[in-house]
Amino acid sequence: MELLKERILRDGKSLPGGILKVDSFINHQMDSELMFRCGEEFIRLFADKRVTKILTVEASGIAPAVFAGYLAKVPVVFAKKATPKTMDRHYVTTVHSFTKGRDYSVLVSKEYLGAGDRILFIDDFLACGNAAIGMADLCKQAGAELVGMGFLVEKSFQGGREKIAETLPGLKVESLAIVTGLGDGTITLA
Amino acid sequence: MELLKERILRDGKSLPGGILKVDSFINHQMDSELMFRCGEEFIRLFADKRVTKILTVEASGIAPAVFAGYLAKVPVVFAKKATPKTMDRHYVTTVHSFTKGRDYSVLVSKEYLGAGDRILFIDDFLACGNAAIGMADLCKQAGAELVGMGFLVEKSFQGGREKIAETLPGLKVESLAIVTGLGDGTITLA
Repeated sequence: MELLKERILRDGKSLPGGILKVDSFINHQMDSELMFRCGEEFIRLFADKRVTKILTVEASGIAPAVFAGYLAKVPVVFAKKATPKTMDRHYVTTVHSFTKGRDYSVLVSKEYLGAGDRILFIDDFLACGNAAIGMADLCKQAGAELVGMGFLVEKSFQGGREKIAETLPGLKVESLAIVTGLGDGTITLA
Repeated sequence: MELLKERILRDGKSLPGGILKVDSFINHQMDSELMFRCGEEFIRLFADKRVTKILTVEASGIAPAVFAGYLAKVPVVFAKKATPKTMDRHYVTTVHSFTKGRDYSVLVSKEYLGAGDRILFIDDFLACGNAAIGMADLCKQAGAELVGMGFLVEKSFQGGREKIAETLPGLKVESLAIVTGLGDGTITLA
């Protein structure tokens, strides 16, 4: 998606350790117009999948996910990283965070994920693929059908796409921008 | 806002301890169409405030905030509850959570909040007002002007509005639905 690629090249920052900083328009300050366009693009890319619900994970996936949900007229569920007092029955999985360097739990209430749901998972980054695999596990526990995954930015050199292909063969995975290299202050896109 | 009030009466649940559960349409599963309408209503209510940026806090404030930002064509910043690796300089404040029963830090990068910003703070709940006061503190530290606060749901019996009026006299505060009482399975709206 050209709009997103241009923005990454203009405002993204390559930091040591394979980190791409995009917090001026995606994951701290958000460009809502750009997030709307990204949501629109996800809906176009997965138009043939008869999606009934969008799943994301707090917090940076929420913006593109709610725009996609708005346009497709389907509910959006965001998985939580802590158990709220008000949630009694839930599915839970463990995810290793590349950026934070530790494991965390991700959970979804049993009320909002279940058999009959055709799930599109949307998130900001595909890096090592750990969050994606965790979300697939939640869908599996719930008996929901995962029909696709859409990411704003994929870092192709961290193996996430390969891990998803291995664990979930045949699943459609789309990334709106693919970063093939992060150098000393340089960003290379596919 | 009638649409939101009807939904709270239909799908909200009153739980012991003054908790209103709205996680089927606001803070776990989200009704994007409803969140769009709420964002639209915030923009209408604060149309005279020349808002330049919307501030919210992860995660449940993000949906109404990004729709409001999209419609008003202004950036949206969500304050974070943990320090990301990629954020070096930030403003930080401490907030006591009523629901979680503990203190937590909330922070915003110095890059995205500053003098010249006219801030509308949007969040899902106004209860005791602690998060709201914390966000006002972040704005003050940054030299940004806080011009209003908008909430999806206010629990009027928990003193948040009074606390804001005392700490920030004259600030415009709008809630799209005001809950005046939560009984044993009953919800009373203003």
